[in-house]
Amino acid sequence: MTGRRLVYMDHAATTPAAPEIVEAMLPYFTERFGNPSSIYGIARESKAAIDTAREQVAHAINASPEEIYITSGGTESDNWAIKGVAYAHRKRGKRIITSAIEHHAVLHTCQYLERQGFEVTYLPVDEFGRVSLSALADAITDETILVSIMAANNEIGTLEPIADCARICRERGVYFHTDAVQAIGSVPVDVRAQDVDLLSLSAHKFYGPKGIGALYIRKGVRLDNLLHGGSQEQRHRAGTENLAGIVGMGAAIERAVGRQEEYARRLTSLRKRLLSGIMERIEHVRLNGHPTERLPGNLNCSFEFIEGEGMLLLLDHAGVAASTGSACTSGSLEPSHVLLAIGLEHATAHGSLRLTLGESNTEADVDYVLEALPPIVERLRTMSPLYADYRRSCNVQ
Amino acid sequence: MTGRRLVYMDHAATTPAAPEIVEAMLPYFTERFGNPSSIYGIARESKAAIDTAREQVAHAINASPEEIYITSGGTESDNWAIKGVAYAHRKRGKRIITSAIEHHAVLHTCQYLERQGFEVTYLPVDEFGRVSLSALADAITDETILVSIMAANNEIGTLEPIADCARICRERGVYFHTDAVQAIGSVPVDVRAQDVDLLSLSAHKFYGPKGIGALYIRKGVRLDNLLHGGSQEQRHRAGTENLAGIVGMGAAIERAVGRQEEYARRLTSLRKRLLSGIMERIEHVRLNGHPTERLPGNLNCSFEFIEGEGMLLLLDHAGVAASTGSACTSGSLEPSHVLLAIGLEHATAHGSLRLTLGESNTEADVDYVLEALPPIVERLRTMSPLYADYRRSCNVQ
Repeated sequence: MTGRRLVYMDHAATTPAAPEIVEAMLPYFTERFGNPSSIYGIARESKAAIDTAREQVAHAINASPEEIYITSGGTESDNWAIKGVAYAHRKRGKRIITSAIEHHAVLHTCQYLERQGFEVTYLPVDEFGRVSLSALADAITDETILVSIMAANNEIGTLEPIADCARICRERGVYFHTDAVQAIGSVPVDVRAQDVDLLSLSAHKFYGPKGIGALYIRKGVRLDNLLHGGSQEQRHRAGTENLAGIVGMGAAIERAVGRQEEYARRLTSLRKRLLSGIMERIEHVRLNGHPTERLPGNLNCSFEFIEGEGMLLLLDHAGVAASTGSACTSGSLEPSHVLLAIGLEHATAHGSLRLTLGESNTEADVDYVLEALPPIVERLRTMSPLYADYRRSCNVQ
Repeated sequence: MTGRRLVYMDHAATTPAAPEIVEAMLPYFTERFGNPSSIYGIARESKAAIDTAREQVAHAINASPEEIYITSGGTESDNWAIKGVAYAHRKRGKRIITSAIEHHAVLHTCQYLERQGFEVTYLPVDEFGRVSLSALADAITDETILVSIMAANNEIGTLEPIADCARICRERGVYFHTDAVQAIGSVPVDVRAQDVDLLSLSAHKFYGPKGIGALYIRKGVRLDNLLHGGSQEQRHRAGTENLAGIVGMGAAIERAVGRQEEYARRLTSLRKRLLSGIMERIEHVRLNGHPTERLPGNLNCSFEFIEGEGMLLLLDHAGVAASTGSACTSGSLEPSHVLLAIGLEHATAHGSLRLTLGESNTEADVDYVLEALPPIVERLRTMSPLYADYRRSCNVQ
């Protein structure tokens, strides 16, 4: 362990852009840079490049190109979907339903809307992080205008039954939005088969660039614009198009969805090796999230008696990049809202570690972590008053 | 004239990213790709890169780094500034003042707010496109919460007296926002000397990448967030940071502001050569915008009796990329709101051409356009019934 090696296991936070994706983007910074809204040669080339990327995104999720609206990323897409529907339909009703374990881009948007007079129901989840379909059906009232349930949780990896949620919403005439930021490229996503009305995605989660994403808006769904200005995106999302980013997103989603099955198979195998290795080597560990219905690359465990942050620091020292949960909330001292929602005690939630596998990871990486992690946990437990208490209570000493 | 040569004279629509800027961005796509909110090595590197870029942006406009909030571009910055202040202060008052010649990112945002119950005053401008300070002062009431006046107009290049506007607003206790998207790199911008509260900028206008911009928010100014979610940007603008874009914006603004004087001198000289050449060679031409108080690279002329679109198509054929006005509204059949606001008739407004010079342009480019343009205007006038009427009325034939 020299600390030189980098084992990156935080692919849920972000992925590197694949070299061939960056290669595809490069001409659009310096040579093919024309503003796609203009009419001369290089502008027409830009427009054609955007058309191609839009088709790639549409094809990847089985939508039509005119249902794909480009945004600056998953957060903008989530904000637009939720505020856009809320503002456009508030005369019909001011009730929104979501789950307690959504990404903050959904939760904080809903909380903002609550301050504007909307009422939001936060559905609880079971011990594995799954929403209950009967609870969803019960929560819908005549004033409900939108349900937003994520496709896959970013912290614990649990897959939600979005096709079933969508079916319930369709029957009740309520729009259904899903944040599929973590799902694209890892599990199949099909807006027709799953019958969703709105879907958010973000390129940097599937080996594309940061700062670019999309909102799928099913034809006929009506929502207010979030960004007003120029006539871009069929007059629904203003702002000069991020040309290189869009080209990168198109190429990246085509690549990701094309290799999704193989990617999922490989990561599932690595994840199982990692999980069983941890369980064999370390005591008092709990797997968070669903045992099987989860993202292939996501492993989230709680290590009793210690703090996740200590693990991160020592793992970083050993050259392993990991996280305790969402990157967006690091710096916060609050335990994860997701781990609390699945029933963990504060102390246990604080001892959680998220390892998310991706393209670069190998069996050697897994084995390296399996070598590095046990002494780290042991060292932290040695320092832990909670662990000392526990051992005394067991009369181990 | 082979049509092979490309003379790009639409720098107000967008600029190519400078090669050294793209070079600076490259490592942040594939190697230094860590999510800046995480705590391990490559994430800390990302955070440091963002800190540097924020300092570069701050230094360029004489702000403090903590007053710089990164956005996806000028449109988001304008939307955030205006909606953010409107929603945060609506209990104090619901009146906003702007000018009739703002970019659509400002105008359409204001129109959206009107539909939400706000009242917006659109100040007229004089024949050169300048707002009147006395009209501004008269328009402010106790219910006024925000004034938004652009630093430089994107169509006719007119510079607005923003320091004077800001002084009036300060005296009356009203926030002052300026859309400085066209100004940065072309004319001096100094948020302290000009005493503005909020300022929008966009990297792709100064040889940086598209899809990235910033909003300057003076310390103490209170506004609602536009994008809710993670804790990025001091909890004021959620979303995983567009790392490569931010690095590019920082490098590009430092480069642009460092060479601003020389850039302005060179473009002013080229513009004068272009204008006097056009005036010498073509009859019935009118210069739009202020004769001296204008962006160095902006030339906007109306050619009587013909349509701007015809000129664009034939110029494109000759390898010259130009525009009739804002790229964001092309496709619209409406004449430019800016040209109407300075008093042009519809027909004259339709015959306008915008040539905006930039780094790549040379005297040879100007001379090429001066050779290409007269026969194009002549050809279009030959086809023009308006011109035939005019000549008959003059008894020329």
